[in-house]
Amino acid sequence: MTRTLRLVVAYDGTAYSGWQIQPSRPTVQGLLVAAARPLLGEDIRLTGASRTDAGVHALRQTVSIRTARAVPGGVVVRALNAALPRDVRVLGCDEANAGFDARRAAIGKRYGYLLNDAPIPAPFLLRYAWHVPGALDVASMRRGLAVLRGRHDFSAFRAAAGRDRPPTCVIRALHVVRRRDRIAVVVSADRFLHHMVRNIVGSAVEIGRGARSHTWLADVLASRDRRRAGPTAPAHGLTLIRVLY
Amino acid sequence: MTRTLRLVVAYDGTAYSGWQIQPSRPTVQGLLVAAARPLLGEDIRLTGASRTDAGVHALRQTVSIRTARAVPGGVVVRALNAALPRDVRVLGCDEANAGFDARRAAIGKRYGYLLNDAPIPAPFLLRYAWHVPGALDVASMRRGLAVLRGRHDFSAFRAAAGRDRPPTCVIRALHVVRRRDRIAVVVSADRFLHHMVRNIVGSAVEIGRGARSHTWLADVLASRDRRRAGPTAPAHGLTLIRVLY
Repeated sequence: MTRTLRLVVAYDGTAYSGWQIQPSRPTVQGLLVAAARPLLGEDIRLTGASRTDAGVHALRQTVSIRTARAVPGGVVVRALNAALPRDVRVLGCDEANAGFDARRAAIGKRYGYLLNDAPIPAPFLLRYAWHVPGALDVASMRRGLAVLRGRHDFSAFRAAAGRDRPPTCVIRALHVVRRRDRIAVVVSADRFLHHMVRNIVGSAVEIGRGARSHTWLADVLASRDRRRAGPTAPAHGLTLIRVLY
Repeated sequence: MTRTLRLVVAYDGTAYSGWQIQPSRPTVQGLLVAAARPLLGEDIRLTGASRTDAGVHALRQTVSIRTARAVPGGVVVRALNAALPRDVRVLGCDEANAGFDARRAAIGKRYGYLLNDAPIPAPFLLRYAWHVPGALDVASMRRGLAVLRGRHDFSAFRAAAGRDRPPTCVIRALHVVRRRDRIAVVVSADRFLHHMVRNIVGSAVEIGRGARSHTWLADVLASRDRRRAGPTAPAHGLTLIRVLY
């Protein structure tokens, strides 16, 4: 009988070429498959809810594994963590309903993007925050981003060579929070286009540093033209916070 | 004429054999001296307020440099940061009174020690927190540590091969703060013995995990015997927060 396990996985993406398994490159999916096979069999199917890009981190990525073997969740957690490098950790594992697919079952995801606007970049944030020197105007960023809330065609914020899928997403929450010289942009949506958060943040920074007015994004959104939005923010500031089911 | 510069320096200590310059090992003082000489001359004298151990971090280490050259603070900041690796950053530089010595002039220091008591260690905290699995009882830790506040002979908390200097220190503030699965122990004192914070934290963890009662540290302190206190907490959880003048 086939069983489906649901895992919660955290990782520091600094050392990895993203989530998706690739020949001869270290990826998080590749590591998990290699760690899981001795325990769960060669013919497992392992799916992550979010295919995070190279350098992107995850606090709680959800992963489903189909396996023919019956292994208790606690054993899976210990065995995988013993085989994985320390910057990838399985936080929990339980048995899901038959046919559960972490990617297809997700009804939403929440991402966080960390900015550091200190004059000199803080050594502790190097791996986790995009350093933008010169104080950002967070109030303007908030006003500028407000227009993105709700259901829209986000073609203007998809990757230049965007994947061929419907460009409509629903942003349910979008917050900008400052704490000293760290600014977190948190975005929750039913789904995301490729590079969508990083393009939104790159545009928000244009507003925050005064290069664009807070009314700019309404035009960018309506244009559906990627060339109108700001640059893509670097991957290392982005973290998958959680997946919603 | 000799001038004295006062610098504020932040570093991630992970890659370094501590503060103090050593032949053929990477140290923070060694990096700063090498970065400063082309700008400030070969005969500079560079002193840090705290000789942090290998792996210990600093948010605001204070450094004094005596030099015969007159260079504006902003130029020093830019030149040093251009020459230093990204995990060591000069945050500021100004001219101090003649004869200012960052170490001798300090009237106190504040250190923070970060613990992570999640069942599975968080990848993001690997470099900055000591992972102690199993929930720590923070209320007991607070009660147990309270006896250390004030002026005491801290011989019981100095390094086993402690340096030969007076063992009396005044702990002005000592706090234990939990935020989810992260616990910060913050200690301010007029001066610190070698390994003192790490030995205090190692002892606090013994109380937090229930191996010792909250009354234990009164006996340990009175004994002045290093063998009575808890183990030395690992270096990577420790951060010099700031130096007081």
